[in-house]
Amino acid sequence: MKDRKLLNIELGRVSVEEYKALPDSGIVVVLDNVRSAHNVGSAFRSSDSFKVDRVWLCGICATPPSAEIHKSGLGAEDSVPWSYAKDTMDAVAALKADGYTVISVEQTVNSVSMESFVPSALAEGGRYALVFGNEVDGVRQDVVDASDMSLEIPQFGTKHSLNVSVAVGVVLWHFTAARLRAQRSFDNDHKTQAE
Amino acid sequence: MKDRKLLNIELGRVSVEEYKALPDSGIVVVLDNVRSAHNVGSAFRSSDSFKVDRVWLCGICATPPSAEIHKSGLGAEDSVPWSYAKDTMDAVAALKADGYTVISVEQTVNSVSMESFVPSALAEGGRYALVFGNEVDGVRQDVVDASDMSLEIPQFGTKHSLNVSVAVGVVLWHFTAARLRAQRSFDNDHKTQAE
Repeated sequence: MKDRKLLNIELGRVSVEEYKALPDSGIVVVLDNVRSAHNVGSAFRSSDSFKVDRVWLCGICATPPSAEIHKSGLGAEDSVPWSYAKDTMDAVAALKADGYTVISVEQTVNSVSMESFVPSALAEGGRYALVFGNEVDGVRQDVVDASDMSLEIPQFGTKHSLNVSVAVGVVLWHFTAARLRAQRSFDNDHKTQAE
Repeated sequence: MKDRKLLNIELGRVSVEEYKALPDSGIVVVLDNVRSAHNVGSAFRSSDSFKVDRVWLCGICATPPSAEIHKSGLGAEDSVPWSYAKDTMDAVAALKADGYTVISVEQTVNSVSMESFVPSALAEGGRYALVFGNEVDGVRQDVVDASDMSLEIPQFGTKHSLNVSVAVGVVLWHFTAARLRAQRSFDNDHKTQAE
């Protein structure tokens, strides 16, 4: 069907100042010893797109300012707030103390397959911290043990591993879709009451 | 919670021969003039994970054998079948003739926001071809016009653009989650009838 592509000026991009004034999404990303600065930058870019409230960089993760993060992140490290923790366990402890449900993205004995998981707490102001691990070793076992649950992206192929920056995008979309559906449901209820 | 990470041998990875014997997912990926061989390889890797039936490489896309595709795809170009079309319009025409619903992933005047879109035809054997565009220019306007619909990944940040390999992962997950839910619903119905 004839369907005109939008121009860049029609995309509704916000400025860094407008971004910082957006309401919280309730979603935080934790990178546990991600080796590649390219992957850190990509995580920033996806976090900017889906309005992540903060990125925690832990252990060996590169931190801004970094030319490589800036390049793959298109500068998103300027819009998305970030923190650094030398030990990922300190970030997890801080987030739990702050009321976050901490979820490790890992394939474990008890991991929940993601299509079955609805982050329903988002609709009631609940907040989630999503932990992504090292390119080779995944999330550290002690971090998995300290998390509230493990979430698995089900896979069927010969590799059973996604690039970590792809995994960040996939999981952020799963949570963002739930957030948007909850928001629409709220808006509809509100509209009905107003009528 | 204590939750042991799975060992590599526990992940249920299939061989290339077993992969080719898996039932079709009903999902095909079309890459419309993707410039970076790294992104092509990443699309293969994600396509392997989510059991995409075929990857169409069009226009300037690099094709296997390619050291760069092999590196970023971890060799997934050996498991996922692929075809090449010099002109993306030829791939779209072939897919439409073969009964596929062709969906361009683009931000357009009439694009459907992805959280609102349920690929319900998968449950009845319907098939989808998902078109992803060039890193800078997106999907070509004539390809958008030839598609059955445009699907938009809603974004909220300062950039309004995802890396194309992240976009491939995000959209493939959205369709795969629907496929898994439909399959579970079918399995449950079947189980109920058998009881």
